[in-house]
Amino acid sequence: MNTQPNWQHIFEECKNNIQKAIQPCLKTLNEPQPKLGMGAGGDLMKPADLASESAIIETLKKHDVSFTLISEESGIKKYGFSAEDCYITVDPIDGTTNLTRNLPFYCTSIAVSNTPYLANVYAGMIADLVHDQTYVAFAGRGAFCNGKPIHTSKTQRLDEACIGLDLNAYKTSLNMDFAAKIIENTKHTRHFGANALEICYVASGLTDAFIDLRTRIRTTDVAAGFLIAKEAGTIITDKANQPINVPLDPKQTLNFVASANTDIHKQILSLISADV
Amino acid sequence: MNTQPNWQHIFEECKNNIQKAIQPCLKTLNEPQPKLGMGAGGDLMKPADLASESAIIETLKKHDVSFTLISEESGIKKYGFSAEDCYITVDPIDGTTNLTRNLPFYCTSIAVSNTPYLANVYAGMIADLVHDQTYVAFAGRGAFCNGKPIHTSKTQRLDEACIGLDLNAYKTSLNMDFAAKIIENTKHTRHFGANALEICYVASGLTDAFIDLRTRIRTTDVAAGFLIAKEAGTIITDKANQPINVPLDPKQTLNFVASANTDIHKQILSLISADV
Repeated sequence: MNTQPNWQHIFEECKNNIQKAIQPCLKTLNEPQPKLGMGAGGDLMKPADLASESAIIETLKKHDVSFTLISEESGIKKYGFSAEDCYITVDPIDGTTNLTRNLPFYCTSIAVSNTPYLANVYAGMIADLVHDQTYVAFAGRGAFCNGKPIHTSKTQRLDEACIGLDLNAYKTSLNMDFAAKIIENTKHTRHFGANALEICYVASGLTDAFIDLRTRIRTTDVAAGFLIAKEAGTIITDKANQPINVPLDPKQTLNFVASANTDIHKQILSLISADV
Repeated sequence: MNTQPNWQHIFEECKNNIQKAIQPCLKTLNEPQPKLGMGAGGDLMKPADLASESAIIETLKKHDVSFTLISEESGIKKYGFSAEDCYITVDPIDGTTNLTRNLPFYCTSIAVSNTPYLANVYAGMIADLVHDQTYVAFAGRGAFCNGKPIHTSKTQRLDEACIGLDLNAYKTSLNMDFAAKIIENTKHTRHFGANALEICYVASGLTDAFIDLRTRIRTTDVAAGFLIAKEAGTIITDKANQPINVPLDPKQTLNFVASANTDIHKQILSLISADV
């Protein structure tokens, strides 16, 4: 690889190729689905996840990118002669359950870094595959949706906010005291079921925060989202208000609060601190 | 009114006219919004709600329908010479918060009855205004989405289910013990923020149940949804497993569990009964 890849261009091509690649899967949703085993992140793999991952790999190969793939589906794999120069962390389909149920909320997340650490991600894309909204960011150069700069909301009060909240905690015990406090102090809560995309909603001011305290979400889900969110002005910490930097690995999990601004972030963390 | 109105045709025309009427509101989302006071249901009115309501009224007038309008926005109003022959219960925009924030989930709900009681609704439409999915039902004649018959899912186990859960309870105290039990026993929970549309998701098998125990939701939100859901096979009761029939009135509230089948309904009610 002699020149720096044109990530803006590659992201756009990935998105188009993914949309084409998953079309056959969308047409057979009501038929019995093949059993494809467990992905590296621990979820059952679906045809759309694999079709999307293949489309990403083929697009990168076509552009002569050498890379180490860190994927929720196939784990860690090396491609090309200098695979350690470039780490590509992907969730081929975030919101697979929505996709398989025809619920119109799912996306692809692709993050680029030169070390396998979250804080090192320097380019990212999240593509809303249903509504054709493509979010991208480049470290120090801002975040964009379909080419237009995006920024977080200026909502200052929690009681006027709309907050994304992932409470899915099948077979575990969740701290519902905290959830109750958020719900009683916030006008609107939402959970669309595709966390990467919901982080972009905070980045672009559609919602005012996204909270996931379960320490279940994987780095593959958030690697691109955190860069896009931060470049748009989002404040992101863990529930103890500490900065987050973890290895990019399909098995690595984390918890986080992503807020539109410091006012909202302080109010959310003050509700957490009493309980968590 | 000499002949029975063609509701299928009127619904379709309402949907098209609403989509045209709200276009100007969607273009000015980022500008300061006019203050329009409180609607009959107790929420702040927005330009899109009023534009949608006007489009519905004008469409019905054009078809020479005499009717009593029961609306979340303008309350109860009579139109034409024999307004007591036909009650039109509407939520002009369900999911106004989503619409004003550009979150792609909102709909219009229109229900037709010959008395102002929920159980008396004989025709209903819920139009997903973003994804162009129009759900309609006629008592005893089934439920349809874009003309195709819809049916609930056959999911039998709660731990394989995807369940809609409205926990928004700003300034009130919600029974979170129940919510915790649902969350710990269900693989996926969602809340998209447009309950009428989320009832249609149960009706068409995209989700397996929708639960709203807050006794905050209004009859204007559910009048069409309940008919569509029941005609598609959905089991709907209140949290005490009793059938629901209440007056159609913008101030009347209720609680309900809508399940894809009796297996799911029993499992949900058994989790509720210990707590509520």
